[in-house]
Amino acid sequence: MSERIEGLSKGQKTQEQIIRAAIKQFSRQGYEEVSLQVIADACGISRTAPLYHFGSKLGLFEKMVEYVQKKKMEVLLSPENIKISDNAFQRLNKFAKAYISWNFIYSSEAEVFLQLYYFSAHNNNFATLYKNLIENERKIIEEILLAGQRESIFHFKEPSQQLANILYSQITGLSIFFLAGRFQAFDRNEFDAAFSATLAKMTGYQSRAQI
Amino acid sequence: MSERIEGLSKGQKTQEQIIRAAIKQFSRQGYEEVSLQVIADACGISRTAPLYHFGSKLGLFEKMVEYVQKKKMEVLLSPENIKISDNAFQRLNKFAKAYISWNFIYSSEAEVFLQLYYFSAHNNNFATLYKNLIENERKIIEEILLAGQRESIFHFKEPSQQLANILYSQITGLSIFFLAGRFQAFDRNEFDAAFSATLAKMTGYQSRAQI
Repeated sequence: MSERIEGLSKGQKTQEQIIRAAIKQFSRQGYEEVSLQVIADACGISRTAPLYHFGSKLGLFEKMVEYVQKKKMEVLLSPENIKISDNAFQRLNKFAKAYISWNFIYSSEAEVFLQLYYFSAHNNNFATLYKNLIENERKIIEEILLAGQRESIFHFKEPSQQLANILYSQITGLSIFFLAGRFQAFDRNEFDAAFSATLAKMTGYQSRAQI
Repeated sequence: MSERIEGLSKGQKTQEQIIRAAIKQFSRQGYEEVSLQVIADACGISRTAPLYHFGSKLGLFEKMVEYVQKKKMEVLLSPENIKISDNAFQRLNKFAKAYISWNFIYSSEAEVFLQLYYFSAHNNNFATLYKNLIENERKIIEEILLAGQRESIFHFKEPSQQLANILYSQITGLSIFFLAGRFQAFDRNEFDAAFSATLAKMTGYQSRAQI
């Protein structure tokens, strides 16, 4: 992520600095093993500063998820990734592939989500956070699916919400597969082609040229 | 899981008892928070017994993953789930749906896998364990895909390994979606129909009756 943190107040800069240090520390050692003091030391700031800015370690984690999520969507939806002229299939395909690739490029940030899944299962605060994240991300997928229907290039019969659930789960599943499985022994080009092909089948994609 | 642990040696019975207690404790509080002593106390056995049987907490976790994986596959591949007369599409569909449902029914056991994903990202021992698990599970899916080709009912052009990767990731992703997201607000019948439909499209399923 960009090192540029201009245009922010001093307080916001400190918060971002703490969040970035937390991402690194949590990724190396895991959430439970890292204290707010360790994070403060890594930033070279007062040991009480994280508590002052975030109220608690959970408070910091919540802001961290928000921060990573925002940065992630900026990358995925950037004009470098999705062109204004792309049709719905191209947008969906690029969004999904960038989602998966993001896990390689920003692996420390991506681990924030693995932590979130893990804690969600035995902690209601984390579960709420995860639900919000799901809502946000699968909504993007559902919107592209509906756009593809309006563009008359997607032809699926399932309710768009269910297909969005399935597609969303597929790309989060693939993210874990590559991130946690550290899956190296695969041909990326072959995978990309197979992924595009299955996506076309799932959405019933037919380009206007084909019709 | 069955409470019946007959036909095992006294040592094996104690090991299984420790593993079951560990699943429960880890699910409630998380791996890091639970000591081998707490697990021993929950079993009402000597505090040194877990160490004697498993060497370390990691050793216990490894055996726990193996145990849960074995029990899970027994359920998924049981004759109650998959009939001897089922064609490859029915086998794949039932396997995948039982995989997802298993997370609801055995949520404590399922959390073992969330823990595995989380730790895999920052610990090589866990990553190896996760890789073995992946190999085992996606191989089953690939075998059913190849069987479907031999039965002339699956018509896909992607390499079977890649399609298996994608399908496997889809069902693990859906498992997390329902488990960590504690996703209640969904129509199960509607989801099941949508899932079967996408599975048919992905595999290019055409029953012999249709041909």
